[in-house]
Amino acid sequence: MADGLAFTKGHGTENDFVLVPDLDGVLDLLPSQVARLADRRAGIGGDGVIRVVPARAAAEEDVRAQAAEAAWFMDYRNADGSAAEMCGNGTRVFAAYLRREGLETADEFAIATRAGVKRVRFEPGGLIAVNLGPWRFADLADASDDGIDALVHLDGHQPFSAVSLDLGNPHTVVALPETIDLAGLDLTRAPVVNPAPPHGTNVEFVRPQGLGHLSMRVHERGVGETRSCGTGACAAALATRFWAGEGAPDVWTVDVPGGRLRVTALPGQEVELAGPAELVADGTTTLV
Amino acid sequence: MADGLAFTKGHGTENDFVLVPDLDGVLDLLPSQVARLADRRAGIGGDGVIRVVPARAAAEEDVRAQAAEAAWFMDYRNADGSAAEMCGNGTRVFAAYLRREGLETADEFAIATRAGVKRVRFEPGGLIAVNLGPWRFADLADASDDGIDALVHLDGHQPFSAVSLDLGNPHTVVALPETIDLAGLDLTRAPVVNPAPPHGTNVEFVRPQGLGHLSMRVHERGVGETRSCGTGACAAALATRFWAGEGAPDVWTVDVPGGRLRVTALPGQEVELAGPAELVADGTTTLV
Repeated sequence: MADGLAFTKGHGTENDFVLVPDLDGVLDLLPSQVARLADRRAGIGGDGVIRVVPARAAAEEDVRAQAAEAAWFMDYRNADGSAAEMCGNGTRVFAAYLRREGLETADEFAIATRAGVKRVRFEPGGLIAVNLGPWRFADLADASDDGIDALVHLDGHQPFSAVSLDLGNPHTVVALPETIDLAGLDLTRAPVVNPAPPHGTNVEFVRPQGLGHLSMRVHERGVGETRSCGTGACAAALATRFWAGEGAPDVWTVDVPGGRLRVTALPGQEVELAGPAELVADGTTTLV
Repeated sequence: MADGLAFTKGHGTENDFVLVPDLDGVLDLLPSQVARLADRRAGIGGDGVIRVVPARAAAEEDVRAQAAEAAWFMDYRNADGSAAEMCGNGTRVFAAYLRREGLETADEFAIATRAGVKRVRFEPGGLIAVNLGPWRFADLADASDDGIDALVHLDGHQPFSAVSLDLGNPHTVVALPETIDLAGLDLTRAPVVNPAPPHGTNVEFVRPQGLGHLSMRVHERGVGETRSCGTGACAAALATRFWAGEGAPDVWTVDVPGGRLRVTALPGQEVELAGPAELVADGTTTLV
């Protein structure tokens, strides 16, 4: 085996990550190095790279301030090397790594992120739940009585009615008419949203499967269709719960192409995401 | 680090592979296990999986018969788990692994494949060359005086003239008119070839860059556009050399999206492919 940087590969509902342990907080991962690790052909490959570093050793002052509550910082980077605030599916994989390595031993603990402290909980059945914090409808003041504030255009279809939510990142959720097959949608090109959100939006296409259950596909802003999107699953469940009206359940099963998630609308306008996390490989790399 | 199956990830001009050492010839990799290893989201990820196994331990009698010449068998599997005869870029990565691990120590040695013994040679500059064996024009008897035997249809373009070659697998090569930008071609959908080859074909779009140099992009049969295709680079060079006529060089530089290859037309209607190979990561996996 070659000497080099240690890594672990893992995924949550097929949203996949390269984890790089930096337990002493001495590793300065350049954007170009992150991009090399995340490259699916010339590198290891992943939707993102997560450096595992003590919160007290973070470069960012507002992350170090979380160290009293959370020992470990999820230093999340996009595949292009840029820093990102958070990643819902990534928190579970990060938490699973901390537990497997014995860096956290409790069933519940907090992790530090650029979006603040997040609490994770290991459930007896193997699911890992994380409170993603507050959410809101983006433009409900402008919405029609049906709770529709946007139209989504996709080649070959009439415009779809949609509602927009803010979960730290922007989402626009479409409830598909029953005449349209979710699996048959062509998402190779980005859907066009009108009015156009200032910084773009993720778009979720939802097929309700009965109360408390939906299937969805997602086109991620700047990425394309993905196998899973944690905040997207939350947005889809919250929008569908809203459309279902009074008496709709707080707990939703959300089927994405990469697996199954559970979304819970919490009191205080917060939302919890739960799902599996798999650590599939460990090794060393000479890429950086 | 988790216990589990050892693996190495490597690539040749961004055609990437998961290598699995089976030095004692005791590993029976099921198609489903291969597919799990090659899965880019839930697994490690690669265009293919290569088991490194002694030729004398191969299940196939015609591979065991190569053991007198070649100590190691490149047991190549496609990403879907099916067995494949050979892979040009894969031979270099396989050879690089054998050398790094000390399983072969000479600058030239033979490897066993399902397509027979292949000879590899390590050059001083770091390139690895492999004789891919015989090739032929597929239907030149039917070709016009221009050496054209097929038309390739791509959305938004007039039909392209093309020539078909057989390198063990089928290729159809288009020389792009100068008015069309290679980088601008939309290869998200498969080109349609007429007459249609019975088992489909790989299609190469070539931009000559001067005598002995070309750029190309490739749409691989059943896969889509890839960053590199070893036999495709050979087909592109051999077709361009043919069109260039008398006095055309035997050695061609071929630029593919994933890097640079060298193709040499050898005496006796054989062809040699040379290029880099990178081993980027080593580890263990719990996937199988």
